Amino acid sequence: MSNSTWSQQILQLLRRMNNFYLPGSRRSECLRFEVNGAQVGWVPPHVASVLTRYPKVFCPPRRGALSLCPSWDSNETRSAAVDSVLRTERQEGSLTCLKGWRDEKYSVMPKFFDPPLMWMERAATSLFGVKRYGVHVNGYTIGNSGEVSMWLARRSLTKQTYPGLLDNVAAGGIAAGVSIKNTLVKECQEEACIPATLAEKACPVANVSYTYMDEEGVFAESQFVFDLELPLDFKPRAGDGEVQDFYLLPLDKVKELLATDDFKPNCAMVVLDFLIRHSFIDPDTEPCYQEFVAGLHQTL
Amino acid sequence: MSNSTWSQQILQLLRRMNNFYLPGSRRSECLRFEVNGAQVGWVPPHVASVLTRYPKVFCPPRRGALSLCPSWDSNETRSAAVDSVLRTERQEGSLTCLKGWRDEKYSVMPKFFDPPLMWMERAATSLFGVKRYGVHVNGYTIGNSGEVSMWLARRSLTKQTYPGLLDNVAAGGIAAGVSIKNTLVKECQEEACIPATLAEKACPVANVSYTYMDEEGVFAESQFVFDLELPLDFKPRAGDGEVQDFYLLPLDKVKELLATDDFKPNCAMVVLDFLIRHSFIDPDTEPCYQEFVAGLHQTL
Repeated sequence: MSNSTWSQQILQLLRRMNNFYLPGSRRSECLRFEVNGAQVGWVPPHVASVLTRYPKVFCPPRRGALSLCPSWDSNETRSAAVDSVLRTERQEGSLTCLKGWRDEKYSVMPKFFDPPLMWMERAATSLFGVKRYGVHVNGYTIGNSGEVSMWLARRSLTKQTYPGLLDNVAAGGIAAGVSIKNTLVKECQEEACIPATLAEKACPVANVSYTYMDEEGVFAESQFVFDLELPLDFKPRAGDGEVQDFYLLPLDKVKELLATDDFKPNCAMVVLDFLIRHSFIDPDTEPCYQEFVAGLHQTL
Repeated sequence: MSNSTWSQQILQLLRRMNNFYLPGSRRSECLRFEVNGAQVGWVPPHVASVLTRYPKVFCPPRRGALSLCPSWDSNETRSAAVDSVLRTERQEGSLTCLKGWRDEKYSVMPKFFDPPLMWMERAATSLFGVKRYGVHVNGYTIGNSGEVSMWLARRSLTKQTYPGLLDNVAAGGIAAGVSIKNTLVKECQEEACIPATLAEKACPVANVSYTYMDEEGVFAESQFVFDLELPLDFKPRAGDGEVQDFYLLPLDKVKELLATDDFKPNCAMVVLDFLIRHSFIDPDTEPCYQEFVAGLHQTL
């Protein structure tokens, strides 16, 4: 692949992952999702038309916003009211992403450190464009001659999302009430059998944020990125069945793969950020350097 | 200073440096500056009213845009026509930032790697909101026990901009036709007497972008950031009179200084990016981690 084809493929990836911000996106058709007067997401029109069938839970849309009825005035009551709607709709089957129900509770709040206003089933967050937070780990090695290689996971073919694609060595969503570091340690253990003593050496280095919209909903995501240098004699092993295999690849090969359909898109973004931070991309020869950096950090 | 005061000061810095994007900014009053049909900047109203006095050079504003007359159809003729207007206005004295005339030519283009449409005197770029590109170098040391310290420059009191404030060890704008790497090497030599053999070891690691507007104009800037580990026995020395002194400070002290008025604002942003990339900010205890990352990478 020529350098310029590579750059264009990466740019397309970043545009796709940020399509919510592009001129002409369907953002203008979405309603702001408000809880207790604060915006916490975006509701696409096909979801709004379902939710407004539950007038005891959601107020009729007003001034471009869909609000949770103010009578639900605590984290517990709000969460229970919305959960009940979602469980009903899960039976109805009209909102396809509820088929991926996980029984994982995600916090809903205007900003990461704000007190949560409610929690919501993970699979439903994209119906409300609620921001999801996660942790991604770049697991890498430095060879005896200084050459950097990266461990990549191949997702299991039975994963609900992106089956069979390349992934970071460990990654996962931050569930309600769990710290970033604890999520990191847990995912390292579960997904890659990286012991806690080793996982705890991971360094927080970045945040990668993006928002895309597809026919299912609005995916507003923010990933806390960690670098973890792994010993040369350590091999990650599949732990919980989410991964079918791990590969240790030279960084040149990883860079090439980034521009293919073989990578889970947000993991490709995390690796791109690694390549930039570790000087594997030269701003004097990469015409899109700035656009790459900008595309990794889009926020509303 | 408490942690939360520090965070709030940093957030304010980032908001100030990105005030062009804030709701209610004077961006809506600006005209797009277009050359050959492509937008290359933003012209504030007080500047537009001056420029429209030169109808042979600038077309009358139309549909929110101020365009260079299409009769100027080459880099050379466009540059000469605008330069002549600017030299006249420099005499008039109504556009204060022309008092800082530098005789440095900056390229004008829609994106960094695009072929330049014209060049413009550096001091005038903010009148047109033309994006300026620069290089900033984090010069740091790693002590024998692993402790990281950073070299900071104190700007000379005779500098036209930000006299007496703290600065990165070396930094400078990228002039027309000069590469990023060559700008880096030149600034390291001129400002800090860092020899080329050492400067060339600097690693490209990031890009920091922001746009602010003040009474003088629109400052749209994009800085290519390099990390340069300096030997423990190396001391930068003032070269060209732009710096009065250099200090080697422990990173905790540098972090504290970031939140004070003693730092040139864009240099504080570059150091903040260093602190994040090198894990000196913990996302589990810094509530504004994400906002910090987002604030360092704002683009139009």
